[in-house]
Amino acid sequence: MALIVQKFGGTSVGTVDRIREVAKRVKESREAGHQLVVVLSAMGKTTDALVQLAKEISEHPDERDMDMLVSTGEQVSIALLAMALQQEGCEAIPLTGWQAGIVTDSVHGEARIKQIETQRIRRHLAQGKIVIIAGFQGMDEQGAITTLGRGGSDTSAVALAASLGAQLCEIYTDVAGVFTADPRLVPTAQKLSAISYQDMLDLAELGAGVLHPRSVETARSHGVHVVVRSSFSNEEGTNVGRDVPAPGITGIAHGEHVAIVTLKGEGIRSRTPVLSSLLQDAGIPVSAFVHGSSFLSFPLAKNQLQKVAALLRENREQLGYRELEEEGGFTMVSVVGVSRHSAAKVLKEIMGRMKLLHIPIRWVHQSERRLSFAIRGNKAETAIRTLHRELGLDGREELAAF
Amino acid sequence: MALIVQKFGGTSVGTVDRIREVAKRVKESREAGHQLVVVLSAMGKTTDALVQLAKEISEHPDERDMDMLVSTGEQVSIALLAMALQQEGCEAIPLTGWQAGIVTDSVHGEARIKQIETQRIRRHLAQGKIVIIAGFQGMDEQGAITTLGRGGSDTSAVALAASLGAQLCEIYTDVAGVFTADPRLVPTAQKLSAISYQDMLDLAELGAGVLHPRSVETARSHGVHVVVRSSFSNEEGTNVGRDVPAPGITGIAHGEHVAIVTLKGEGIRSRTPVLSSLLQDAGIPVSAFVHGSSFLSFPLAKNQLQKVAALLRENREQLGYRELEEEGGFTMVSVVGVSRHSAAKVLKEIMGRMKLLHIPIRWVHQSERRLSFAIRGNKAETAIRTLHRELGLDGREELAAF
Repeated sequence: MALIVQKFGGTSVGTVDRIREVAKRVKESREAGHQLVVVLSAMGKTTDALVQLAKEISEHPDERDMDMLVSTGEQVSIALLAMALQQEGCEAIPLTGWQAGIVTDSVHGEARIKQIETQRIRRHLAQGKIVIIAGFQGMDEQGAITTLGRGGSDTSAVALAASLGAQLCEIYTDVAGVFTADPRLVPTAQKLSAISYQDMLDLAELGAGVLHPRSVETARSHGVHVVVRSSFSNEEGTNVGRDVPAPGITGIAHGEHVAIVTLKGEGIRSRTPVLSSLLQDAGIPVSAFVHGSSFLSFPLAKNQLQKVAALLRENREQLGYRELEEEGGFTMVSVVGVSRHSAAKVLKEIMGRMKLLHIPIRWVHQSERRLSFAIRGNKAETAIRTLHRELGLDGREELAAF
Repeated sequence: MALIVQKFGGTSVGTVDRIREVAKRVKESREAGHQLVVVLSAMGKTTDALVQLAKEISEHPDERDMDMLVSTGEQVSIALLAMALQQEGCEAIPLTGWQAGIVTDSVHGEARIKQIETQRIRRHLAQGKIVIIAGFQGMDEQGAITTLGRGGSDTSAVALAASLGAQLCEIYTDVAGVFTADPRLVPTAQKLSAISYQDMLDLAELGAGVLHPRSVETARSHGVHVVVRSSFSNEEGTNVGRDVPAPGITGIAHGEHVAIVTLKGEGIRSRTPVLSSLLQDAGIPVSAFVHGSSFLSFPLAKNQLQKVAALLRENREQLGYRELEEEGGFTMVSVVGVSRHSAAKVLKEIMGRMKLLHIPIRWVHQSERRLSFAIRGNKAETAIRTLHRELGLDGREELAAF
């Protein structure tokens, strides 16, 4: 008998019918003899609808009040799944974040889990119950309801698996696992049977939406065995773990709506640490800077551009730049799993292919095991499909080429 | 500076615009220098919608899970009002039932408040904040979310006023106060400026929906000064309190969809205590029995008829009746505030008037300060309007007649 944490996302519990399907799946695992903790997101677009309601009242509602509001979404899901499970003849108990003992810091809207007081969960498990827990939410030490930010239910699930010492943390989602590229964009994308924490983290940070980066960090630091799989099929998913041999290139991630900011001026390169800490303090950590002797450029999510541009103008003197250039409309394409010795070869391949396709590369950045470059958004599909093929990801047998 | 509890019902917070109106009203009281605790119901039909969602999953969902589900309704209201108040420049803190320290027993769906641990509320009040509390809900001693049943927000408000020693508990609703009859039915109904706890309790129990009986009981036992008033106007409301001189007849209440159950058989009268305790044990307390030498009859809400009929059949031997008669479709009309010495005169007036109107009276019951009688539902409007006029309630000056 294993203890398994199963997490179902918003699409998986999007309707009453889907909640019934989740109940059936949970029941199967139960009948296979496992102890189960089930973590749920809010139903489908519930969170967005609640946010919309708030916006009608206030343009900038207090984050504390937002947490009070949106945390109702998961509370509805867990109550309904509990009913569906009782209907299936399974004894289940729904617990909100605070009832489950999920203690966070007080950063409303982006809280981090500090600890999980698992006594209540363990007591119910010992009584043979399936414990259903509201993801995405917790309580701070003053008793205020907090939320972990978007994607936070993944983090709840992994943190619960870590605290409970679960053998497995299954993340059920609307895709069948982690792919070598976004299958909606690249029809030849291959599902990975396994991926290392580091490569998963890279993919997650670089735009692959399947897991939230914070959840991957939590999994890595506690060695939680995560499986990403579909809630709509019985297909085997992708194992995320420590001892995964590097398979050469792991995949291609991409992030849309990227802007590139460039500061120009003599000696600007030396101001990188100042700029980096300015951005950090503003809550916008940037790790990838590209610089020449008289320029310094970095990518940003487009929706952060306005805030950053204002920040840079305010600190013009301190940063000592002559000119500020902002340009939007890019997609950042990242190749993940590039080993040190093959990096030059992969980069050459990318440059050559983009040239053949007449796709200008605006910005390139190389770091440990990954290569990122920015191209115009409308060229992304062609570029990614071509690279996916040429880097040997369409069929794994060609992988040895790199 | 007074401490005031203000409660706003579902209609008063039914839309974002109405929530804004409530915020303005609360702000006015704040600017008048009062400390404020604001208790809210769920927005409009939210609770019904959540119940509907549950019914799609399970015909008889667990009450514990229902409480988890429907308690989200008030949580949404309090979050939105907090935002609206911040928008108005008022500092406010929303608290769920459990955060507000409302401790109940564990009877899910119909919980009773055992105590209120007011430290957290008092701390926020001392910091100058308006404290917004989710009505209708609490937490039991095991940390499970409970609800108080329909109308429970009134009870939350009155219990909070009692625990906090508030000077006033204002119940804002969609009518301007307590009337001598339902103004939707009787256009000449008069608003009462004051009413005693006992008469209010009678009206509430006998069908006047303006206050929940349990909240009136709580107000009476703690001497809470309650005012019922409109959330849509500045009209003065109705004061509910201890030292209200009995004004003669207070008003006419009516309850629709009433069934009359009659047991026939020799000596059946002597079985009243047995019957009474059977019904009590089944959670259907009946206080008004009418009996003759060979019959025993009592009224019921129509939706309880099936359950009670089954119970009576099961216990036929013990009850020793020969025949069981059930008849639905009645409206119970009750005249409240009938003094002992005028009871006979009022009853005679009722009987006479109904006879003139050709409205058969099916069942009559007289008790301390009230007279109730059942008539066919389709005759109720005519009967109540006529009695309202003839008993002098259309204009208070004629009141002295009784």
